[in-house]
Amino acid sequence: MTILTRSLTLEAFLQQPETDPPSEYIDGQISPKPMPKGRHSRLQGKLGGAINASAEELRLAYAFPELRCNFGGRSIIPDLAIFDWNRIPRTPTGTVPDDFDLAPDWIIEILSPKQQTNKVLDNILHCLQHGCQLGWFLEPDDESILLLLPEQAPRLYRGNTTLPVFLNLRLELSPAQIFGWLAL
Amino acid sequence: MTILTRSLTLEAFLQQPETDPPSEYIDGQISPKPMPKGRHSRLQGKLGGAINASAEELRLAYAFPELRCNFGGRSIIPDLAIFDWNRIPRTPTGTVPDDFDLAPDWIIEILSPKQQTNKVLDNILHCLQHGCQLGWFLEPDDESILLLLPEQAPRLYRGNTTLPVFLNLRLELSPAQIFGWLAL
Repeated sequence: MTILTRSLTLEAFLQQPETDPPSEYIDGQISPKPMPKGRHSRLQGKLGGAINASAEELRLAYAFPELRCNFGGRSIIPDLAIFDWNRIPRTPTGTVPDDFDLAPDWIIEILSPKQQTNKVLDNILHCLQHGCQLGWFLEPDDESILLLLPEQAPRLYRGNTTLPVFLNLRLELSPAQIFGWLAL
Repeated sequence: MTILTRSLTLEAFLQQPETDPPSEYIDGQISPKPMPKGRHSRLQGKLGGAINASAEELRLAYAFPELRCNFGGRSIIPDLAIFDWNRIPRTPTGTVPDDFDLAPDWIIEILSPKQQTNKVLDNILHCLQHGCQLGWFLEPDDESILLLLPEQAPRLYRGNTTLPVFLNLRLELSPAQIFGWLAL
């Protein structure tokens, strides 16, 4: 369901109270984000955990689940928004702020049942046009990951091929390993 | 449903009788193509008709629906395979052959319900890696078209924006016009 709201600016949208489920604001349209289901939740949790295990202690990067990011005229909520440690905004007291008005450095989206693919891909492309360096698009039904880089043709990964990750993270992951997490 | 057939080569696959629905052969795996439903059939027919109306009489190109194309180790069946007129293979007597062992110049895929997105996108990327110059990926639920070009980042089109077409076809189409065909 998409609600057309021609008159609402991004700024006005951001002043509205959060809804449940939360909504994204894309080109003047407000769309509720699908509620994560089991497979989505499992993949999001395990992936975020693996990324942070390899990146947080070294202060390289941090993966935020379901973080609202406002930039380039959109307000989107990536399944995982990963930021270079030095690009994470800070409050005056050095803590993590509530508002992130920038694109993530690495975006991971996991296709949910009935979710519109092009809408998700478009958000990844939007990130890549605004400084993001890497996009992963996971399709659990196909056990495959579409890898998107700025100004490049996408590439599909499946099986045991090691996936490129952001920065110099010591993180070797393959689609087989990632979708293997679904078998508890 | 995907049937793993490690031992079957593309050549051996092509010698098997056609099934109903027909199957695609991708990296050693055989997958039945989903049977087209109403919206898919309507878009495929109208789009193919529009392309051929602008291209056939001028002998510029021809759009073939559901044509099996064998190349680069795969046998795929694009929803629409459009060939430059001069690249359409001919039999010794100058007629259209039954077997097309080459990539189309322009591939159009329409996402069907329950179809795996990445599998479809991967077939478009496979075409672009084998000489194809343009890919369209239509998502009826989102009324949007992802445009893919060789070695370039994809771009999403929606609304009244005119879509790039193959060759110098006199064909001005927008997503709004194309998905408008669904309202009879």
